[in-house]
Amino acid sequence: MDREELRAIIEEVAAGTAGVDDALARLAGAGIDDLGFARIDTDRERRTGLAEVIFAPGKTDEQLEALVGRCLELHGKVLVTRLEPERALPLLGTFSELRFHDAARVLEARPDAEPAHPMVAVVSAGTSDLPVAEEAAVVLEHLGHPVDRVVDVGVAGIHRLFSQLDRLRAARAVVVAAGMEGALPSVVAGLVDRPVVAVPTSVGYGASFGGVAALLGMLNSCAAGIGVVNIDNGFGAATLVHRIASSDGGDR
Amino acid sequence: MDREELRAIIEEVAAGTAGVDDALARLAGAGIDDLGFARIDTDRERRTGLAEVIFAPGKTDEQLEALVGRCLELHGKVLVTRLEPERALPLLGTFSELRFHDAARVLEARPDAEPAHPMVAVVSAGTSDLPVAEEAAVVLEHLGHPVDRVVDVGVAGIHRLFSQLDRLRAARAVVVAAGMEGALPSVVAGLVDRPVVAVPTSVGYGASFGGVAALLGMLNSCAAGIGVVNIDNGFGAATLVHRIASSDGGDR
Amino acid sequence: MDREELRAIIEEVAAGTAGVDDALARLAGAGIDDLGFARIDTDRERRTGLAEVIFAPGKTDEQLEALVGRCLELHGKVLVTRLEPERALPLLGTFSELRFHDAARVLEARPDAEPAHPMVAVVSAGTSDLPVAEEAAVVLEHLGHPVDRVVDVGVAGIHRLFSQLDRLRAARAVVVAAGMEGALPSVVAGLVDRPVVAVPTSVGYGASFGGVAALLGMLNSCAAGIGVVNIDNGFGAATLVHRIASSDGGDR
Amino acid sequence: MDREELRAIIEEVAAGTAGVDDALARLAGAGIDDLGFARIDTDRERRTGLAEVIFAPGKTDEQLEALVGRCLELHGKVLVTRLEPERALPLLGTFSELRFHDAARVLEARPDAEPAHPMVAVVSAGTSDLPVAEEAAVVLEHLGHPVDRVVDVGVAGIHRLFSQLDRLRAARAVVVAAGMEGALPSVVAGLVDRPVVAVPTSVGYGASFGGVAALLGMLNSCAAGIGVVNIDNGFGAATLVHRIASSDGGDR
Amino acid sequence: MDREELRAIIEEVAAGTAGVDDALARLAGAGIDDLGFARIDTDRERRTGLAEVIFAPGKTDEQLEALVGRCLELHGKVLVTRLEPERALPLLGTFSELRFHDAARVLEARPDAEPAHPMVAVVSAGTSDLPVAEEAAVVLEHLGHPVDRVVDVGVAGIHRLFSQLDRLRAARAVVVAAGMEGALPSVVAGLVDRPVVAVPTSVGYGASFGGVAALLGMLNSCAAGIGVVNIDNGFGAATLVHRIASSDGGDR
Amino acid sequence: MDREELRAIIEEVAAGTAGVDDALARLAGAGIDDLGFARIDTDRERRTGLAEVIFAPGKTDEQLEALVGRCLELHGKVLVTRLEPERALPLLGTFSELRFHDAARVLEARPDAEPAHPMVAVVSAGTSDLPVAEEAAVVLEHLGHPVDRVVDVGVAGIHRLFSQLDRLRAARAVVVAAGMEGALPSVVAGLVDRPVVAVPTSVGYGASFGGVAALLGMLNSCAAGIGVVNIDNGFGAATLVHRIASSDGGDR
Amino acid sequence: MDREELRAIIEEVAAGTAGVDDALARLAGAGIDDLGFARIDTDRERRTGLAEVIFAPGKTDEQLEALVGRCLELHGKVLVTRLEPERALPLLGTFSELRFHDAARVLEARPDAEPAHPMVAVVSAGTSDLPVAEEAAVVLEHLGHPVDRVVDVGVAGIHRLFSQLDRLRAARAVVVAAGMEGALPSVVAGLVDRPVVAVPTSVGYGASFGGVAALLGMLNSCAAGIGVVNIDNGFGAATLVHRIASSDGGDR
Amino acid sequence: MDREELRAIIEEVAAGTAGVDDALARLAGAGIDDLGFARIDTDRERRTGLAEVIFAPGKTDEQLEALVGRCLELHGKVLVTRLEPERALPLLGTFSELRFHDAARVLEARPDAEPAHPMVAVVSAGTSDLPVAEEAAVVLEHLGHPVDRVVDVGVAGIHRLFSQLDRLRAARAVVVAAGMEGALPSVVAGLVDRPVVAVPTSVGYGASFGGVAALLGMLNSCAAGIGVVNIDNGFGAATLVHRIASSDGGDR
Repeated sequence: MDREELRAIIEEVAAGTAGVDDALARLAGAGIDDLGFARIDTDRERRTGLAEVIFAPGKTDEQLEALVGRCLELHGKVLVTRLEPERALPLLGTFSELRFHDAARVLEARPDAEPAHPMVAVVSAGTSDLPVAEEAAVVLEHLGHPVDRVVDVGVAGIHRLFSQLDRLRAARAVVVAAGMEGALPSVVAGLVDRPVVAVPTSVGYGASFGGVAALLGMLNSCAAGIGVVNIDNGFGAATLVHRIASSDGGDR
Repeated sequence: MDREELRAIIEEVAAGTAGVDDALARLAGAGIDDLGFARIDTDRERRTGLAEVIFAPGKTDEQLEALVGRCLELHGKVLVTRLEPERALPLLGTFSELRFHDAARVLEARPDAEPAHPMVAVVSAGTSDLPVAEEAAVVLEHLGHPVDRVVDVGVAGIHRLFSQLDRLRAARAVVVAAGMEGALPSVVAGLVDRPVVAVPTSVGYGASFGGVAALLGMLNSCAAGIGVVNIDNGFGAATLVHRIASSDGGDR
Repeated sequence: MDREELRAIIEEVAAGTAGVDDALARLAGAGIDDLGFARIDTDRERRTGLAEVIFAPGKTDEQLEALVGRCLELHGKVLVTRLEPERALPLLGTFSELRFHDAARVLEARPDAEPAHPMVAVVSAGTSDLPVAEEAAVVLEHLGHPVDRVVDVGVAGIHRLFSQLDRLRAARAVVVAAGMEGALPSVVAGLVDRPVVAVPTSVGYGASFGGVAALLGMLNSCAAGIGVVNIDNGFGAATLVHRIASSDGGDR
Repeated sequence: MDREELRAIIEEVAAGTAGVDDALARLAGAGIDDLGFARIDTDRERRTGLAEVIFAPGKTDEQLEALVGRCLELHGKVLVTRLEPERALPLLGTFSELRFHDAARVLEARPDAEPAHPMVAVVSAGTSDLPVAEEAAVVLEHLGHPVDRVVDVGVAGIHRLFSQLDRLRAARAVVVAAGMEGALPSVVAGLVDRPVVAVPTSVGYGASFGGVAALLGMLNSCAAGIGVVNIDNGFGAATLVHRIASSDGGDR
Repeated sequence: MDREELRAIIEEVAAGTAGVDDALARLAGAGIDDLGFARIDTDRERRTGLAEVIFAPGKTDEQLEALVGRCLELHGKVLVTRLEPERALPLLGTFSELRFHDAARVLEARPDAEPAHPMVAVVSAGTSDLPVAEEAAVVLEHLGHPVDRVVDVGVAGIHRLFSQLDRLRAARAVVVAAGMEGALPSVVAGLVDRPVVAVPTSVGYGASFGGVAALLGMLNSCAAGIGVVNIDNGFGAATLVHRIASSDGGDR
Repeated sequence: MDREELRAIIEEVAAGTAGVDDALARLAGAGIDDLGFARIDTDRERRTGLAEVIFAPGKTDEQLEALVGRCLELHGKVLVTRLEPERALPLLGTFSELRFHDAARVLEARPDAEPAHPMVAVVSAGTSDLPVAEEAAVVLEHLGHPVDRVVDVGVAGIHRLFSQLDRLRAARAVVVAAGMEGALPSVVAGLVDRPVVAVPTSVGYGASFGGVAALLGMLNSCAAGIGVVNIDNGFGAATLVHRIASSDGGDR
Repeated sequence: MDREELRAIIEEVAAGTAGVDDALARLAGAGIDDLGFARIDTDRERRTGLAEVIFAPGKTDEQLEALVGRCLELHGKVLVTRLEPERALPLLGTFSELRFHDAARVLEARPDAEPAHPMVAVVSAGTSDLPVAEEAAVVLEHLGHPVDRVVDVGVAGIHRLFSQLDRLRAARAVVVAAGMEGALPSVVAGLVDRPVVAVPTSVGYGASFGGVAALLGMLNSCAAGIGVVNIDNGFGAATLVHRIASSDGGDR
Repeated sequence: MDREELRAIIEEVAAGTAGVDDALARLAGAGIDDLGFARIDTDRERRTGLAEVIFAPGKTDEQLEALVGRCLELHGKVLVTRLEPERALPLLGTFSELRFHDAARVLEARPDAEPAHPMVAVVSAGTSDLPVAEEAAVVLEHLGHPVDRVVDVGVAGIHRLFSQLDRLRAARAVVVAAGMEGALPSVVAGLVDRPVVAVPTSVGYGASFGGVAALLGMLNSCAAGIGVVNIDNGFGAATLVHRIASSDGGDR
C-alpha cells in the first residue's frame, strides 16, 4: 500500500465515510488474496510493474491449478516458469487460454491488449544456452516487448558477434546468456552502449561447477555496464530488462 | 571501429582518396593511444558511452600520472577509482583540475559542460556500507546524474525504508548497497518498480566471507528486477545505472 | 546418569543394599537398550526432555521396524523423520497406533495424554518451503504444542507479513522456514520480540547451492534474536523451540 | 509502528483531533531519529525488546561519538560492540557514564534500574574462546541477566564438563562458545535439557577456515535443541538467549 | 578474417573490381554458415588449425543431425564429443562415413588424406581414467597424430612408470590423465623433458569433489612444464597437444 | 625393486651369470604383470605389506573378471571394494572361492592360512554409519585381524560410549566412523590412548555437504592422536590400521 | 576417570572408609586442576598417554605463565606449541628449565628420565616445509622418540627419495610434511610398509589455498596406509605417531 | 638416472671395471648434491631440460645464499623467483654475476653462451597483470627465447588485440596473463593457431577470490588449445612454453 492509497483511506476516516475498524481492516487486508496455502499478492503489478509469477518447482499439481485459475480470474493473464511439459499438459486441458513454450518451459496466458514496449535483444553464446535464453525471451514477449534473438555468437569465433552488433545497438537493452567461462557479456559490453544483463548458464563440465565459473566471470567483468542475475535465471534477466525498458519516458 | 567508420574508409579507397596501405593502417591503429605500458582505448566513450576509467590498484605512481595526464589531454576529464588518499596527493599537486572524494576514494576531473541525465537514487543499508555507496554516487555525478542518497534503511527496522519510498519511486533507477545478509535489494524491488542494481558490500564478519553471503542473497532474491554487480563494486553499479538512465528517449 | 541417580546408587552401596559389582554394572549399563545394531538411549527423555527420535535415511526396513517396535514398548510413543511414503506403508500395517504425515514425511505415535505446552508459530516464506515447515509443525504438535501456521509471507510482498504480526506476537517462539535469499527471519526478528528459529530450505536454483545462500543469509542477519539450524532441518527447529517453550516457569 | 499505535492515530483522525497531513507525517516519521548519516530506530526496544546497538567496525570516530551521545539522550543507556580499546578511550573521556569491558571489547552504559531476568550460563570450550564468550556474557549482563561462566570444558577431557552439569541445568538457557571442531554444543545438548545457543569461534588453524569447521559441526549436530549463530558472534548469542529468557511467564 | 583477406578485399575496391556495399557484406558475412539455431564458424580451421567441433550435450537430436550433415558438406569430416551411444546410433544410420568410438564417446569422420603429424603419448594413471584418456587419444588420431597409449602407471607403484619412460621421451608431447590426488603429472614432468598436458579426471570419491582434488594437485605441481585443462576434458588436452605438435618446423 | 634385489642382479652381472641386456630387462620389467588395460603391481605386498586391491567403480565387467582371475592366480587371494551386489553375482558364479559381504560391498577370497595379527576395534557413531564401518571391518578381517565392532555410541548420548571404553582400550588401534558433525573421534581420543583412525561418513543432510562437515570436524579435533582418511573410506582406514598393528615387534 | 578408579572409590564406600558426599566430590573433581580461566586436565597423560599441551595462540602472557608454571609443578615437564619467539623470551627468563626451539616454535621442558621409544622418521618435501616438520620432530623428541630427519625429497626429483628408502624402512612410523600438490605421502606409502602420517603444509601460492590443495591430495591418495592431520599440524602428526609407536608390545 | 647411464654402469660391472658396492653407491647417489637442509637435483637439467630453480619464499637468507652459491658453482647460472628486492640486495653484493629484475621479482645469472630458441609472445590483459607477465618473460629470456611483449589488450576494448594478431602468429607459443574474468585466453585461442598458455592473475576484487574467477574462466574456455597454470605462476607458464618451443626439430 502506498502513500496515495493510505491518504485516501485516512481522508475517508477524516470525512467520516469510513469507520476506524473498517479502515484498519482495509489497511491489513489490502492487496492479498488468500488461498489457504498461498497468499496472492494482488497489488504487486501496480506496485512493481509485474504481476505475481508462479515458480512451478516444489508446488503440487493441485496448488498449481488453483494458482493458475485464480491468477486468470484476477488478472486475465498468468505466467508459470520452470514447468515440466508433463505437468503443463493437464493445465492446458483445463484452461484453454494457456499456451506452453517447450524450449523455455514457460506456460502463459497473455493479456488481450499487449502493451507496446521497446524492442530488446536476447543473445546466446552457444546452442546449449538456448533454453535459458528462451525463458528470457518468452517472458519478455509476455510483458510486451518485441525480442530480437541473436544465437551462437560465442567468443571462440568472435567475428560471428561483430556482424550482429547493429542488432544489439538497435535494442533498448541486451540479455546475454552464456555458460562455460561466461566471457560473452564482457565482450558485448565493450562493444555496445546498451545495458547488459548477464545470465550465467549451467552449461559446461568439470570445473564449471554448474555455472559458478560463468557467474564469477560475469561478476568480475573488466567491462562496464553489466548486471548479473542468478545461474540459469532467464526469468530474472527478463524482469530486470523489463524494468529498464518499460519505464522510459513517462513522468519522471 | 563501427560500420560507419569502416564504410567511410572503404569509400575513400573506392574514390581513390586513400591508398590500400593507408586504409589498412587506419583500420589497425584506430582508437588506440599507445603509452608503452598501456594502450588507451580512445574510442571507448563513443562506442560504450563511457570513456576509459583508471583502476588504481596495481599501477605504479608513474603509470598513474602518465595515464591521468593523457586522459586529460584526450578527453578533458578523467576518473580514477580505488585510489588511496596518500597516492592522490601528488596527482592533485600536478593537475590542478582534479578533485578527490575521500569517502569514495575517487579522483576525478569533470567535463566543463556536464550532460543533464535523469536523477538516480543510491541507497545504503547501514553506516558501514557508505564508502561503497559513495563510490557509486560520485561516479554517477561524474557522469552527469543528480543523485539522491538514502542512508541507513536496513531491514532490521524496515519502517525506516517505508518512509523513503517516494524518493526511490522518483528516481530513474536505484542502486542498493548492503552487506551482511544483503536482503535490502529484495525488499526494495518488492516495493518499487524501478530497476534495482544491487551491490553486495564486504561489511560483516564470520560467515559473511567478505561479502559472499550478501552476494548470494542478492543473486537468489525472490523479488524480480534486480541486477547484481561484484562485491564492493560501486563503480560497476554506477556504470550499469548510467547505461539504463542515459539512453532514455533517443532514436530507438 | 545424573548426580541424583549416582548418589542413589552410592548410597545403596554405603547402606550395604547394593554390592560393588552390581553398582558398577548399573553405572555402566544405565539408560541403554541394546538391539545389536543400535543402542537405544532410554534415558534421553528424562535427561534432555526429548526421547530418542528415529532418523530414517540409511536404515534398512528391518532396522526401522525393530526400532519402532522397541520405542513403542519403551515409551508408548515414537517419532520417525525423513521417511518416504512407500517405506511408511508396511510400518503402518504392522503398528496400528502409527500415523503418517505425508507433507512432513513424519511417522509418529503420540502419547495418550499429551502435555499442554505453549502455542508456537511456524512461518513459511513460500509454498515450496511448506514441507520443511510441516516437519517442524508436526514434530511440535507431537511434543504437545499448539501450532499456528503462517504461510506465504515472503519479502517480495512484505505487506502480507505485516497483517500477520499479531499472530507471531501471540506465540511463545517462532520458526521461520525460507529458501532463496533467506531474508524473512531478519524481517520477522526486526518486527517482533519472540525468539526466532530460522530454517534455511534447499528451495532455489543456480547459486542457491542447495540452501547455502539462505543459510548464510540467516547467519549474517542484521537483526538480533535469531538462532539457525541446518538446511531443511525442520525437526531441529522444532526441538529447539520445544526447549525454549517447554521450560517456562517451573522451579528455576 | 504496530496495530495499537496505528489505531490511536486513526482514532484521532476520526475524532477530528488530528488532520490528514499530520497523521500521514506521524505515520511516516514514527520511530526514527535522523542523524544525517544514520537513522536511529527509536522504536526498536518496544518492538523487539532490545534497543538499537552500535556495531563499531566501519564507523568513523565522529559517527561513533554522535551515535553514543544520541543513544544516551534517547534511552539513558548504550551498548557498543567490537570496539578496539584505543577507540574506546576518547569516548570514555567524553561520556562519564560509560564502562569498557576489555576482554569482550564492549562499551556500555547500563540503565539505572536493571531488570531482573533469569540466570543464564555461558560455557567456553577453551581459553582461546574466552573473548567471544565474554562478549556474550557482558551483553547478557547489560540486558539484566545474572551470568554463570563455565570455562575450559572442551571435549578432549570431557570429565571436566560432567562435574559442571548442575550449573548448566540451573540456567534458563546455555550459550556454548567453541572453536576447532565445535563439538561441545552437541555434547552439552545431549546431557541437559536447556536450549543451547552455539557460537562457533574462529579459534583454530589450517582447515578450520576461520571458524567454518566449528560452524558446520554445530549445524550438523546429532543432538537436538541447538540454535547456531554466526562465527564469533557472542552478541548474537546473547540476544537470542535474552529473547528466550526474558519472555517467560507473561500473558502468553 | 585476417590481414591478408582484408588486404585482398580492399585491393579489389581500389581496383574497382568490388563495390563498397559488396566489400562491406563480405567483411560482415565472412566465415559464417548460418543454420538458424547455430552459426558454423567455417573459417575456424584456417584460423586456429582446428575445424569447429560439435559438443553433444544440450543439443537436440535434430540439431545434431543438421550440424553433422553440414560439417560433412563443408569439410568432408566431422568430430562430435561427449555423445551417448544411444544418440550415436541414428547418426551412424544416416551418415555412412561416421565411426563411433565407444570408450571415448566420440563420433567422427576422418578426412581422406590424413596429415602426418608427430607421435604423441597419452598416459593414464588407472583403469578408471581410461575413458578420458581415450577421448584425448581418439581426437589426436582424428587430427593426424600417431598415439602411444601408456596405461595404469599410477604413483602407488611408481616402478611401473619407470619402465615406460623411453616411450614418453619418444613422444612430441605427453597427455597425462589422472584422478584421485592427481600426482602423476608431477612425477612425469620431473622425469622427462616433454611438454606435459595434465587432465584431472573425476575418478575418486569423498573429498575428491568430482575431480577438484586432482585439478588442484596438478595446478600446484612442484614440477615445471605442466599445462592443465578442465576436469575430464580429454578433448581440450588433445587440442593443446595438437597445437604444440603440429606447428613444428614451418616458417617460424 | 629394493636394494637387495638390485644388489642380487648386479652381483649376477659381476659374476658373469647374467648379461647386460638380461639385467636391464629384469630391472625394467620387475614386479609388473601386464594385462593390456592394467599392469598389476605384483611386488606391492612385499613392498608395502598389502597386495594390490581392486577398486570396482569405473571398471567394466570384463576388466573386473580379468583382474580377479589374475589376482587369484598370482596371490591365491583377492579383495574387491565398492562392488554393487548385482556386479558381484557373475563373479561369484565364475570363481567359487569368492565371498561377498553385502553391507560392506566387499568381495574377497582370503588366503588359506590367515596371519594372526592383533585385535582392533571398529566404532560407528550411528546405524547409518554401519556400511562404512563394515568396509573397514571386513578389510581388516581379510588382512588377518580379529575385529571388535562397537556400534551406535554417538555423542548425543555419550554414556553409551563410556560403558564400552574397556573394549577400545583392549584394541591395538581404533577405527571411528562418524557422519554429521564427526565429533566422536575427538571424544574417543580424549578417553583412550590407542591410535584413532577417523573416517568421516557422508551421512547427514543440508550443510553436511556429503561428509565435508564431519571431515573438517575430525581434522580440527582438539584431541591428540587422530589420523583422518577420506570420506566413506573404510578401506583406507583399514589399511592404515593394518600398518599400525601388523608391524609390532619385529627387528625395529 | 576409568573403571579401576571408579571401582576403588566404590569399594571404599562399601568398606565404609569413604562417605557418600566424599565419594561424590572425588568423582566430580577428579583429574581437574582449576586455575580460574582454565581447568588443567591432570589425568590426561594416564588416560591418553600425553599430558595436556599448551597451544599458545589466543592466550594472554599472564595465562601462559600461569599454565607453564602449573604444568611444571604438576608434571615436571611442559610443552608449548605455536609460540612466537618474542613471547618465549620472558618465559625462558622465569623458568630456567625451559628450552625454545626456534624453527619449530616449540617451548618445552623435558622430563628428567626420558622414556626410550622406537625411532621414527620425519620427511619434508622441500625447504619451506621444514618449520612444520620441525614441530613434529621436536614434539616426538619431547615424547622420547629418536627422530631421523629426511629433507628435500620432493617428487619433482624423485630419485632423491629412492636413495633414502632404507632410512624410512628402519623407522617405526613416518611423518611426511609436504605443501603444493602434496604428492609425497602417496609415493612414500607406495614404497615402504610403515604407517604414514601425512601433514599438509600451507606452502604454495595461487590455487594452493593455504594448504587445501595438499590436504585434498593427501586425503585422495591412491596409496594405502596414510592418515592425514590438519594443515601445518606438525604437533598432531607427532601425537598420532607417538600413539602408534609407543604402544608396541606391552600387555595387549 | 636414465637407461643409458644405467647401462653404462652395468656394463662397467660386466667388464669388471666397477665393483658391486661402487655400482650401488653410484646408483644411489647419482644426481644429488647434499647441502644438509636441501638436496640439489644436479641431474634435473639433463633430465627435464631445466636446471633446478630456487623458489625464494619460506627460505632463510642463509639458505638462499648457500643455494645460489652452489648453483653458480655447479651450473654457472642460477634462477631465483619470487624474491623481494630487499632480500636481493645482499645477494647482489655477494655474487657479482647476478642481475635482479624488479618488476618480475626474479634474480638470475645467465649462462655465457645463450641457446638460440624460437621467439615466443607474452600477452598481458591490463597494466596490473604486468608483474606476472614479466616473471614469465624474464624466465623465458633466461632460457634463451626472444620474447615479444604485447601489453594492455583486454577484452573490454578488443580491437586493441586485433591490431596485434600478426605478432602473436609470429610466435612459437603464446603466454596470456589476465585477471578479473580471465577471458583473454579464450579470445586469443579463437583467433590464432599457436599453443596458448594461460596464467590467471590475482588481480581483481570482490568475487575474484584472489584469481579463482580468472582460473575458472580459463579452465572452462570454450576455445580449444589452452593449457592453464596456477594463479600468478608466470614461472610455470614460462617452463611449459620452453618445453613446447625448445624441442622443435631434433631427433624425434
